[in-house]
This record gives sequence, structure tokens and C-alpha cells, in this order.
Amino acid sequence: MANAEPATKKQKIETEETLLEEIDTTQNEIDALNEQASEEILKIEQKYNKLRKPFYDKRAAIIEKVDKFWLTTFINHPRISSILQDQEEDCLHYMTKLHVEDFDDVKTGYRISFHFKENPYFENEVLTKEFHLAAENMSDNFTQTSTATQIKWKDGKDLLKELQSKPTNKKRDADHKSFFDWFLDTHDPSTDDIAETLKDDIFPNPLQYFLVPDIGVYNDEDDSAAEEVEGEGSEQEIEDDEELEEEAEEGE
Amino acid sequence: MANAEPATKKQKIETEETLLEEIDTTQNEIDALNEQASEEILKIEQKYNKLRKPFYDKRAAIIEKVDKFWLTTFINHPRISSILQDQEEDCLHYMTKLHVEDFDDVKTGYRISFHFKENPYFENEVLTKEFHLAAENMSDNFTQTSTATQIKWKDGKDLLKELQSKPTNKKRDADHKSFFDWFLDTHDPSTDDIAETLKDDIFPNPLQYFLVPDIGVYNDEDDSAAEEVEGEGSEQEIEDDEELEEEAEEGE
Repeated sequence: MANAEPATKKQKIETEETLLEEIDTTQNEIDALNEQASEEILKIEQKYNKLRKPFYDKRAAIIEKVDKFWLTTFINHPRISSILQDQEEDCLHYMTKLHVEDFDDVKTGYRISFHFKENPYFENEVLTKEFHLAAENMSDNFTQTSTATQIKWKDGKDLLKELQSKPTNKKRDADHKSFFDWFLDTHDPSTDDIAETLKDDIFPNPLQYFLVPDIGVYNDEDDSAAEEVEGEGSEQEIEDDEELEEEAEEGE
Repeated sequence: MANAEPATKKQKIETEETLLEEIDTTQNEIDALNEQASEEILKIEQKYNKLRKPFYDKRAAIIEKVDKFWLTTFINHPRISSILQDQEEDCLHYMTKLHVEDFDDVKTGYRISFHFKENPYFENEVLTKEFHLAAENMSDNFTQTSTATQIKWKDGKDLLKELQSKPTNKKRDADHKSFFDWFLDTHDPSTDDIAETLKDDIFPNPLQYFLVPDIGVYNDEDDSAAEEVEGEGSEQEIEDDEELEEEAEEGE
């Protein structure tokens, strides 16, 4: 009986080894399906990026006609507002368009573009920040690198130099002391919550931030302006009366 | 000229109001496309859930033949190991199958099932914990509710009573003091990292945890057991020799 043991042991090892090989083979088949699923989902995202594009373009064309749309939207957003400096707010008066788009393959990154009309601060018409995602390993941890358009400041108008020369006693941010400081900072962008806010919160629906709830005292003598604008299926009510009133009063 | 002002003001308000209406209309079209995209992605996930099913079933059938597969996998996983009590480890000797599946519509939740063979601890063959996700608002914040199979403990074998009667001086966990304490706890499961570990880490590829890296002293007199099992495209090397050796030695 003692002689039989090594054979039994060997047999058991071989059986278990065979089973583990079989599990591994099946696992590879599952992994292959997972990759196929990811590919198909990427294709859907690509398809809808294309389908959304004309509507984003249409929206952008209308937004351009609304005075201070992006400045107002940024000021009304708590996260973006937290890094805006006074002079930057003046500069953002001239911003006409925000655009966010995935790279064509969706998975390797995205870019955020800020379009400006002729302004006293810089020569650029478009400032673009790109975020390149690189898969670090198989378990989908990504590292990011970013690039930013070099800003061609006009003489004496470099807002970052302004900022460095005086202590910032206004709004503060743990990571970025100003909007342009964020824009030009291409170090360690893996936790860039400003970029994520612009991409996933503001760009998908900026109107909700442009139209802040009407919390001020409202005194309207023009009934036509008090009508609420409601689109079918709209997720929030549009309360634009105070905004419009302010605009109108500035014009008087 | 003074008389003209109210008309200009009214005109400006109407123009801006019209623009905001147009933005809102376009936004609704974008939102509708987003919903369509989500639906299509859900369908892809449903499709691949079906395609993966036979491979998961096949894998489960092989795993059942491997002695202590799930116990070993759980012990080797740092997060699950942190809540396992000694007596629970004994109980998990009898666990034969882990299964995780989305509900049919994918988006409303998932269930985790633990299958057991005849054992001294309880009568149940399957213990199932279900997680129901409910959308709280439009910005995709979800709340979870969960349910768990009632465990029919055999006389004097209630592991939770055991646990309550003596101080736990072994492993500790911030949230759960044992595996069955986690299983039966259906309060506030919105941050259930044990469930997430089982669903997103262990179930997709348990073999990598069953096959821990060979860190112990290895003394092998049987060359056939030292051969490495490598599947094509496998993401990790299979180092099963020590495991098999231990099994074999227990059998002697």
C-alpha cells in the first residue's frame, strides 16, 4: 500500500493541473468576449459622437449670439467659479465657444477648446487643452499626459504674470490658483477635476448653469419677459427672467 | 429717443429669450441621443452577458472539481480575507460555486450567489444576495437596496451567534466583522466594497487569486508538477506548483 501512494499523488497532481489548464482556457475565452464587448461599446460611442456633432455645432452657433453665455455659465458653476480671478472674468467676456470632443478612437483621449473673439488679452482665437490617456496595464488603470496651446499674450496683458506679482487674496483653489494657471498646467493631470467638470458636467448641458435658479428679488414690469421657456422633455425649468432683466437694465 | 427705449429693451429680451428656447430645443435633441446611446450600450452588455454565460457555466463546472477552489481564492484575496473568520473558513470548504449576474435589464441591479454542498453549518444549497439599483435623479446617482437569503443554520452551528458570544480578536474590518455578517447585512449597501470586489474583481477572473505567486520555500521532487500551465493570451503566469504540492501532502 505504501508503494501505491506516489502514483496516487502524481495522478492527483496531474488531474488538478489539467483542471487548472481547462479553467485557464475558458478564462481566455471569457477575456476575448470582454475585449469584443469593449470594442463594440467604443463603436457605439464613436457613432453617437458623430450623431451628436451637428447638434453641438447648432447649439454652439446659437450660444455665440447670447451675450456672456460662457462667462455666466462659468461664474454660476461652483467648481469653475472657485478658480476664476477678477481679471480672468473680464477676459472670459470674450469667450464665444466651448467645445469638448473625444479623439476619433474615443479611448486614447479628448480635447477641450475655448474659442475667443478679438480681445485685449491675447492673439489666439482658440486655446486647446488635450488629454492623452494611456493604458498602464491590463486592469484599465490609465495615466494621462496633457498639452496646452501656448498663449500669445498681448503686451502687458499676461494674466499669469499679473497673478504672480500680487498675492491672491480672492478665491483660492487647492490645485490651481486661476483659470489660466489650470489651463497652462500640464503636470500630473491624472486627477484634473476642472477638465472633468468641463467635459462631463458643463459641456453636456451648459444651459442649466447659465440659468441659475431665480434667487434674487424679482421686480418685473414687463410681462412678456416673465413667461417661462419650457421645452418638451426638458430636465429643468428655465428661469431666465432675472438674467434677461439684468441684461436689459445694463443696456438702458 | 427716450420713448424708444422700452421697445428696444423688449426686443432684446425677446431675442435672448428666443435664443435660449433654441438652445433648450437643441439640448433636448442631444439628451435624446444620449438616451439612445445608453440604450444601445445596455443592449451590448445584455448581448455579451448572454454570450459569456456558457463560458461561465463551463468554468464553474471545472472549478467544482478543484478542491477548495473558492476557499483558497477568498483566502488569497486581501479584501475578502480581511473579513474571514476561522470557522467561516471551515464552512467555505463546502462552497462549490460563485456566480454573479446582472438582472436581465442590466441597469437595475445584480445578484451574487454562493453555492454549497451538503455541510455541517446550514441547510441552504444556495445563498443569494441581490443588489437593487434605483436611479435617484437624472445625473446618474444611484441608491442601492439589498436582500439576502435567510440562512437556515443547523443546531448550534449559527456562525454569527458564535461570533457575537466571543470577542473577535482575529481579523477585523471597519464595516463587517465577518463574511456572514457582510452577507446578511442589508443596511446601507451603497458603498459595499465586498460586493464590488466579488462582482468586478474576483468573479471576472478568480484563477489569478487561486494561483497566488509562489512566495514560499519550494521543495519539489516531482518534476511533472513543476511544469507551468500557460494559456495563450493569458494575462498572468500560472504558478500552481506550491498549491498542488500542499494538496498532495495533505493527501498522504
